[in-house]
Amino acid sequence: MSLKAILFIADGMADRPVKDLNWKTPLEAARRSSLNQIAKTGVCGIIDPIAPGVPPGSDAATLALLGYNALKVYSGRGALEALGSGVKVLPGDVAFRCNFATVNQKSVVIDRRAGRISNEDAAKLARNLSKIKLRRSLNVDFVFKSTIQHRAVLTLRGSKLSAAISDSDPGKADEKVLEVKSLDNSLNAERTAKILNELSHEFQKVLKNHPVNEERIKHGLPPANIVLCRGAGTTPNLKPLSEIYGIKAACIAAAPLVRGVCKVAGMKLVDVKGATGTPQTDYIAKARAAVQALKSCDLVLLHVKAADVASHDGKAKQKVEVIENIDRMAGYLLDKVGLDSTYLAVTADHTTSTATGNHEGDPVPIAIAGPYVRCDDVEKYDERSCAKGGLGRIRGLDLMPILMNFLGRTKKFGA
Amino acid sequence: MSLKAILFIADGMADRPVKDLNWKTPLEAARRSSLNQIAKTGVCGIIDPIAPGVPPGSDAATLALLGYNALKVYSGRGALEALGSGVKVLPGDVAFRCNFATVNQKSVVIDRRAGRISNEDAAKLARNLSKIKLRRSLNVDFVFKSTIQHRAVLTLRGSKLSAAISDSDPGKADEKVLEVKSLDNSLNAERTAKILNELSHEFQKVLKNHPVNEERIKHGLPPANIVLCRGAGTTPNLKPLSEIYGIKAACIAAAPLVRGVCKVAGMKLVDVKGATGTPQTDYIAKARAAVQALKSCDLVLLHVKAADVASHDGKAKQKVEVIENIDRMAGYLLDKVGLDSTYLAVTADHTTSTATGNHEGDPVPIAIAGPYVRCDDVEKYDERSCAKGGLGRIRGLDLMPILMNFLGRTKKFGA
Repeated sequence: MSLKAILFIADGMADRPVKDLNWKTPLEAARRSSLNQIAKTGVCGIIDPIAPGVPPGSDAATLALLGYNALKVYSGRGALEALGSGVKVLPGDVAFRCNFATVNQKSVVIDRRAGRISNEDAAKLARNLSKIKLRRSLNVDFVFKSTIQHRAVLTLRGSKLSAAISDSDPGKADEKVLEVKSLDNSLNAERTAKILNELSHEFQKVLKNHPVNEERIKHGLPPANIVLCRGAGTTPNLKPLSEIYGIKAACIAAAPLVRGVCKVAGMKLVDVKGATGTPQTDYIAKARAAVQALKSCDLVLLHVKAADVASHDGKAKQKVEVIENIDRMAGYLLDKVGLDSTYLAVTADHTTSTATGNHEGDPVPIAIAGPYVRCDDVEKYDERSCAKGGLGRIRGLDLMPILMNFLGRTKKFGA
Repeated sequence: MSLKAILFIADGMADRPVKDLNWKTPLEAARRSSLNQIAKTGVCGIIDPIAPGVPPGSDAATLALLGYNALKVYSGRGALEALGSGVKVLPGDVAFRCNFATVNQKSVVIDRRAGRISNEDAAKLARNLSKIKLRRSLNVDFVFKSTIQHRAVLTLRGSKLSAAISDSDPGKADEKVLEVKSLDNSLNAERTAKILNELSHEFQKVLKNHPVNEERIKHGLPPANIVLCRGAGTTPNLKPLSEIYGIKAACIAAAPLVRGVCKVAGMKLVDVKGATGTPQTDYIAKARAAVQALKSCDLVLLHVKAADVASHDGKAKQKVEVIENIDRMAGYLLDKVGLDSTYLAVTADHTTSTATGNHEGDPVPIAIAGPYVRCDDVEKYDERSCAKGGLGRIRGLDLMPILMNFLGRTKKFGA
């Protein structure tokens, strides 16, 4: 019987002690019998996703948890987000995360999310933006695609492009849209900045009198009259997991960014109906999809975004509820898959503090249950209990070799 | 309210179990209610200042505890000691630690400390040594300054100097003074060795019949008839803490070496009356200065040398007393600063064994108390209790990012 593994990553689930939870962390405050079961049966520890004290982005952290040295291979968020949204990003392409936003006549951002414009409106706008033809002399093509609500991705394709350019997105409202600039004074970066500025201008012209926006204004909704770009990135050049460990791997995630990371790792992306990347996602549908995917794969990464969303919103009690849903997923996995020939590894990609609303550099808990693990004394799954576990304190990029070792998939070093 | 931190480093405080203390370590044997309070309220662990098993010098350890990769940036003790003594060491300069010593007519060292010559006598000699003019063709200047008792620093300034040269100091009595040699056969090192040999010779000529020495001989004291040099070093090229973390940082230390490290890290050096770097230092005056410095700084490094001194002298009971004084300092900090918006981190720069009298490579305890830390079950501050704490086992250079993460001063990696 071949050994398999589910790597269950709860985005931003780890936290610091919260005053409103009587100085427990949301994990400590949640009913979590199945997570505790995994901790109790398994071997536990804590992980510094990137390095001690370094707050990780989800992209870098997921790269690390898949065994890649994020500090070396990370090449910007835009390409990962685009890849995860189903847009190709070839070597040489430069991709961006984009927002439909609302600006006033002085180019000051009024609403960075254009009133969280609907998927439908955004898609209609995107269709027209895609038809724009840039000057031939620029010698560049582009792909623009709307994803969820105000979110979109943009890929530039052509020769002599560079990701070393700044954002047009000022990052918050009441600030002026920024001119995109080269960050390294290279000719390629200057060329790319110029292209992006010109394309943004063309976008604005199309958006200005677009029927969708006229309709929005009529209904008192903020028009999506600009596309803001940020996070220029290129596709990281990774050896796929199949090549490193000889495994088939699948990814179950709604968040485009995580899907993008899994894609560059050569994993199969599984779509799940009802998976939204929000606290209202269909938790059990995702767990069910993981069980299904495991039938044809050796490794399934199961990612849930919800805890991070609750944390960024500062909602500790909602975070507790999300974790209780995550616990139900863990229960489903234990029930349907068991631990006879499958390893269940549960962790978070980073700590997100409900107090600060930010990603923090505190370590995250890890528990690995499955055949022949050296189970330890830890009886509960949370930040402080797992810190006493048999895995000790490890780095994010150590997790995958540890899991693959259990699966008999790591190569001997030496003879 | 902005978050701040005090990094309290007790030099050489960590130890091994001591037979005369009923196999307790000096920390375990000491009354230390305030240190225990910090451990109890905080999160604990152990630190390998450089790497497991590697006995660190105080300079390298302090560099590491400030977050620098000592294995890469360390460039010799001499420059750090000189900088900490208020002597400039510019890029290109090579600096040395020096001792006034006593040799016999065969150049055999009789007393490496010239009878622990007084500060006054040493200063008089240094004044005359400073007037020496080297041959113009050597194209080099020098600064010589006496510091505490027999100790002094020397800086060579000129082009084509190298720190890759050996010591003239044999390191113990009854050995001959050594000729300084190039360690890498480079032309610059050969030139620098030649300069130092020639300068040492000039020093000896001035010292030979100096009135101070004639007076010493008359009183039966060993004459300071030679200057021994060791630890050639250059200024490490570090990004200051202000640039890395955007903080203002201050250093409270009497030991020139630690002051030098803090200076190259861009920290403000605070002078404290009564701080001597010995077990007879004014402990509370230093704690008071730390509290004062914290008003205008984000980070204060508070260093006490005394425990290391007691350890090198093999005085376990004195070390216990020193630790009880350090505990009083901790109590003062807890009382005056509290933990509402300040992090208190207490550690040692290395283990110094009272049994061997040497720096050892055993890890040191760390406790960090302050808002929102994931406090653990550890109730006592000592080597073995802290080893069970929630921080696990970390490296010296991880401490600063961990502290700066608590202060919200670390940058996110990824998006």
